[in-house]
Amino acid sequence: MVLRPMTGMVSFRAASARDLITIVALLADDPIGRGRENPGSQLETCYREAFAAIERDPNQLLAVAERSGDVIGVLQLSFIPGLTRRGMWRGQIEGVRVAASERASGIGRAMLEWAIEECRRRGCGLVQLTSDKRRSAAHGFYEALGFEATHQGYKLSL
Amino acid sequence: MVLRPMTGMVSFRAASARDLITIVALLADDPIGRGRENPGSQLETCYREAFAAIERDPNQLLAVAERSGDVIGVLQLSFIPGLTRRGMWRGQIEGVRVAASERASGIGRAMLEWAIEECRRRGCGLVQLTSDKRRSAAHGFYEALGFEATHQGYKLSL
Repeated sequence: MVLRPMTGMVSFRAASARDLITIVALLADDPIGRGRENPGSQLETCYREAFAAIERDPNQLLAVAERSGDVIGVLQLSFIPGLTRRGMWRGQIEGVRVAASERASGIGRAMLEWAIEECRRRGCGLVQLTSDKRRSAAHGFYEALGFEATHQGYKLSL
Repeated sequence: MVLRPMTGMVSFRAASARDLITIVALLADDPIGRGRENPGSQLETCYREAFAAIERDPNQLLAVAERSGDVIGVLQLSFIPGLTRRGMWRGQIEGVRVAASERASGIGRAMLEWAIEECRRRGCGLVQLTSDKRRSAAHGFYEALGFEATHQGYKLSL
């Protein structure tokens, strides 16, 4: 894959309620997300409630990548305390998306590197994520960042 | 694998600080956990701090299985709000252990079924966990409970 150069400064920050319509559009603009999300300018209450729950929880951080005032990427970090591995905190990454027009420009990599650094800053000893087995291109991306596919990721729909 | 019958009533409850020495011993009594944990009657501060962080966070539930006053199993549930899948809450299960003397008696299954029900009660639409690829016996166990290995589980040590 040839990387296009990133143009302009990209910055990362916590998402605000103003970003929600753009974020849900990003989540939906994806082969797997398309069938799962309901984007639009009038968002369903479920998204507003989920955003409020994320904002209330100090161990959640919904973050966006921004350039020239445009939100071009999103991910969620969860900081999880636990007893295993001598009481090690884990940083968990979910819902990583980059705007279609910005893919292969290095923004995904910059966003993940920022997220890993944020986990380190918050005292985590491990960063974890799962990636759908159908996302084969994503797997090489995570492995290039140093992630190892040591685990099976199981899901059960209720 | 032949299941031995469960003897006596098993109940499930939130762990208390009094259970901590037993829980860490359970985490260590495992081929993978052995090299990672430091059990004993004088626990390192790291475990006490991690337990306090779990107790402070209303979206964490460290649960034990108990029979006749003995703690015979442990797992941690994390309830994670998120925007994906139309703002669906996820229940995440980590650190599942059953006492060596109690394995293959159905307690693991009862404990997971209890955890899944707890996720449903808390409004989760999905339960997720990752299992080390070396734990091949565990994989059949999770699949028998209805979990599907749809994802790769990536870890990065910091």
